Order: sequence, then structure tokens, then C-alpha cells
Amino acid sequence: MRVSDLQTPALLVERSLLEQNLATMSAALPGARLRPHVKAHKTTALARLQAAQGHRGFTCATIREVEGMAAAGLGDDLLLANEVLDARSLGAVVEGGARVTVAVDSAQTVDAAADGGVREVVVDVEVGLPRCGCDPAEAGRIADRARRRGLEVRGVMGYEGHLMLETERKAEQTEECMSRLLAAHADVGGDLVSAGGTGTYAVNTWATEIQAGSYALMDTAYAATGLPFGQALTVLARVVSVSSKGWAVADLGLKSLGMDHGNPTLPGMLVWFCSDEHTTFSAEDGSALPAVGDLLRAEPAHVDPTVALHERMHLVDGAGPDAEVLESWAVDLRGW
Amino acid sequence: MRVSDLQTPALLVERSLLEQNLATMSAALPGARLRPHVKAHKTTALARLQAAQGHRGFTCATIREVEGMAAAGLGDDLLLANEVLDARSLGAVVEGGARVTVAVDSAQTVDAAADGGVREVVVDVEVGLPRCGCDPAEAGRIADRARRRGLEVRGVMGYEGHLMLETERKAEQTEECMSRLLAAHADVGGDLVSAGGTGTYAVNTWATEIQAGSYALMDTAYAATGLPFGQALTVLARVVSVSSKGWAVADLGLKSLGMDHGNPTLPGMLVWFCSDEHTTFSAEDGSALPAVGDLLRAEPAHVDPTVALHERMHLVDGAGPDAEVLESWAVDLRGW
Repeated sequence: MRVSDLQTPALLVERSLLEQNLATMSAALPGARLRPHVKAHKTTALARLQAAQGHRGFTCATIREVEGMAAAGLGDDLLLANEVLDARSLGAVVEGGARVTVAVDSAQTVDAAADGGVREVVVDVEVGLPRCGCDPAEAGRIADRARRRGLEVRGVMGYEGHLMLETERKAEQTEECMSRLLAAHADVGGDLVSAGGTGTYAVNTWATEIQAGSYALMDTAYAATGLPFGQALTVLARVVSVSSKGWAVADLGLKSLGMDHGNPTLPGMLVWFCSDEHTTFSAEDGSALPAVGDLLRAEPAHVDPTVALHERMHLVDGAGPDAEVLESWAVDLRGW
Repeated sequence: MRVSDLQTPALLVERSLLEQNLATMSAALPGARLRPHVKAHKTTALARLQAAQGHRGFTCATIREVEGMAAAGLGDDLLLANEVLDARSLGAVVEGGARVTVAVDSAQTVDAAADGGVREVVVDVEVGLPRCGCDPAEAGRIADRARRRGLEVRGVMGYEGHLMLETERKAEQTEECMSRLLAAHADVGGDLVSAGGTGTYAVNTWATEIQAGSYALMDTAYAATGLPFGQALTVLARVVSVSSKGWAVADLGLKSLGMDHGNPTLPGMLVWFCSDEHTTFSAEDGSALPAVGDLLRAEPAHVDPTVALHERMHLVDGAGPDAEVLESWAVDLRGW
């Protein structure tokens, strides 16, 4: 099958760039130093490539991701880096033989883990991003409660998410965040200090493991920060209409693109706006407007919510419409 | 099953509001005056309720929607209000006994329709929104080409999408748009003048049929314009974390909400930001922050891309956590 045979819109993954991204990250963070986050690609076939690079532990954001990874035989060490109030589905995964650790940041989430049959937790600590995680001063008490409930406390996690797209003073700011996490760790104990992401992987030397996900496929928001990863993911679209007034329309839009970080990039083109199934654009100076029927590859601004809109991603080799589709992978970790 | 038994995040549809919305629109636009657009709900179970109100023709935005509607026995008169360059799948639906009409706005899309085995088209006319559709002056030539290719030309369509959220001079602006469509219709012929949407259904008296979709479920962007439809759709979420610093976090985010029209609304709460799986918020003056484990119902800003992120929607009766889940419908028209 060729790229031109695909029904548009469709997620494409350029093999050489994916392989290069995986190799670059594994060289920087070998083995257990990287706990790849599957929320960015939601695809067990891609997780399998990460496991083949020597990363046996994975980070998940949803119960469905934990279930899917375990079912795919990738359940050696799954960290659900998120709070849940009903952990019975996770307990069932543990019963099935996978290792599942869940984040807790309150008495209620500790109790949910214990009641649900999960055996291992990390204490989630708020390190500067106003989201989940307890205050460092509370972490010891939460760990105590977990141990009283018979749970193994493996350590702490924190996410300096507000620094991911930061380009100024990143190392210093990361250090400030991690000082909060290390203070909590001193009270909690355990082997794990799990933190970080694609934006801080190179500067976060305090965490024992980094939860990076976006590096594998990438997006234009991360690319703008100068990371050494290539734009492996694009959304294939077809030009369906060209106006005599100077604009053209491709068949990708709000239902095939995560829009929270802004419009997609069409190289050589100026994107006007996206609607449900369409993107209207004109040509930049020096570029020609494509013709009806032409294929384009749009670079999404945010990888995670883009992938979540698609059933499949297609591994391809080459940039043209005749490029071969090597494999088609189910985005099998979607949903809840 | 009760609402509190659902895995969050989950789409809820309040039965009384849905029924009221369907009845209000059907009273305004009875029978063939309304051609409900399925792109806003992507759910054949909901389309069946619209058909039961007497609307036998439907509007679709994708080939998958056409295929799914036909497979569900709702294929009496399906209009794909979008351009396609490969219509073979549509031809197969026609062969299967459904009636399929496709929009064309160029020689290439006319040829694709004819080559693909579609028998009926409408000429899509640009009426002010810079998207698909030919110039009115070109419409007659496109119709001629379609007839030469053996296609039945049923009329014209146009979409004054830029007026949907407009509140000033809506009728006058709609008239300007429709004057372009009627000029094209004079050259094209046929019975259909298909246009409009939820935002202009009450003022567009020039179209023979209105392609409204959002009215059934609604969103906060449309609600702000003062339409007589209630917010039937919400996203159920659970509070997973509450900070001692005054914010709380619920388990809905960029993967369960269309974000192009902005943040969701949490009644009584001030939404700070959404990330992939989380929404951080605080309480408005006079409201109490909910507790860990509490259920919330968020009102999405844009219905169409929100629905496209979910596998199912749940019909419920009542506002509390003990409200009964009456039916769970597959969002079976997703994808491409």
C-alpha cells in the first residue's frame, strides 16, 4: 500500500525519524533512566519499539492505558502517574500478573488503591504546576497511611509540566521544582524519584527516571524549543477545494488535530483557520498553492490530543505520495 | 446503572433536554425543512430519534458518516455536504440501496463523483465563508459538466458558517449570503437549496432545507448566542485531587474536550486550564470547592470535536450522581 491509497485524514509516522528519536533518547537516558510515557502515542506497537530499546518500565495516564499495556505483554512495570478513585480495574491487572504502581496524593486515593487490590504506590508531589500532587510537607503522612494500608511505597513522583516548553533558565527552574520533590522523598523513602518529560529530560538530573513521551513522535510546540528530535508524526490530508480567490482547503480539521496549542503547520503555507473537517490556507510568498487532489502532510501543534482522535497510525518510509506504508498500527490505548 | 458507576470522563446526554431540543427544532423546521447534520453527534441512535421526528434526509460530513447511516437503515436521502476526490466508497453505498448525494465544486470533484458510482450531486457554492464551494459565477458550468457526466444535479448548497455565532444583523447578513446561493441556483436548477445551521435556522428563509446539527446536544458557544436549545450534553468528570492552596483537579482534559472554542464551563467554578487528562479549577465566590471523589458535569465549548473524542454517550435522567443511565449509545460514526 502507498500513502496515496490511504483514506484522509490519516496519521503518518516517518520511520527514519521515529527510529532516530528513539535512539537519541535512549542514548541520553538508557534503560531504567527512561520510563516512556504512553499517553503521547497510545499505541502498543510503538511501546514495543521502546521496550526493545531497553526500557521495560512505562508511564501511563489512564486505567485503559494500563490495561492495554498489560494485555500487550508490556506489563513488567507500569506506573499510572495519575490519581484514581476506583482502582478495582487496576487490581484486576495486578491479579493478571502485571506490575502496577499508582500515584496517590490524598487519603482517598491511598484508600482507593488499597481497596482496589493495587499493591504498590508512589506519592505524587506538587512541584510547581497547579495540578495533582500533595504539598511536600504532606508526603510523609500520605506514605505512612499507605504503609498502614499494606501498600508498598516505591517513592515519589512529580511533574514540572509548566517548564516543558520553557526555554529560559530551564535547568535552574527544574532544580527548584526537584528540590520540592527531593524534600518529599526524604520523608517518603523508596527507590523511585520519577519526574520530567520531553522538555526537561536533558536537564533533570535529580529524578531517578524521566517520564518522557512526546519525543518519539514530536509536535511543533516542542520543536520550537530546539530539542534534538525530528517531527516524525504528520497528518496526511488531501486538498479538496481551491478557490479562485487564492485560498485552498484540505480535509483535516478539529476532529483530526489537537488544537489547544494552536493551528497545525503546513510547510510553505499560511494556515487561516481550522473547522471541524477542514483547514483553509493560502500559499506563503514563494510557494505555489497546491491543486485539488494533492496530498499534504500537516505538522500538529500538540501530539497527544492529535493522536487520541485517530484509530490508526501508519508507518511510512519517504515523503512523497508514492511512499510505502510499511505497517499500520492501531492506536489501541484510546478511551477510558 | 447509575451515573456514579460510569468510568470518567464520560459523555452524558440529559434526556429531557435532548427531547426538548429535538421538538423545538422540528416545530420550527418540520419534515424536509430540516436535514439534520450528523457530524455534531456522530451517533446513529440519536439520528434515529431525529428520523422519528419526521426528518428523513440527513447531512453528513465524511464518507464514514454516510456509510454508517446507510448501514443503520437511515439512508433514505443522505447528503455528503463535503468534497471528495475518491467516491468509490460512496458508490458502494448507492449500490447497497441508499440514496447518496455529494457536494461538488470543481471539475475534479464532479469527475470523482461520476467515476465513483455516485448518481446525484449538488453544486457547493461559497457564500462568504472562505472554505469549500465555487464562486456563484462558476456554478452553472460545474452543473453542466455534472450533467454531461450523467449525474443528476439536485440543486445547490452553501454554508454561511461565519454567521453561526453572530448576534448582530444576522438576518441581513444571512440574506447577503443566500443571495449568492440563489444566484447560483438560477444557473444550476434543481429542487434543493440546502444551507444554514443551528445558528441561522431561524432566519434563513431562503434555503429550502437547513443543515443544523448542534441544536440537539448544544455547547456553550452556541448557548451564548441565546438560542432556544438547552445544554443536553455534558462531560462527566470526577475530582481526583484537591490542593490545600485552593484549587482542585478533575479527570477531564484535552482528550475528552474539543478545545478550539476555549475551556469548558464548570458551573460555580473558575476553570484555570486544561491539560491532557486534567482540568484545574477553583471555586467562584459563593461556591464551595468540591471534594476528592465528587462528580462534576462540564459543559463543553464546542460539541462536534468533543463528541469525536468519545466512544459512547450515555442517556441519563436527572442531575445527581444517582441519576439512572437509561441507554448507552455508541458514537459509531467516528473516524474516516
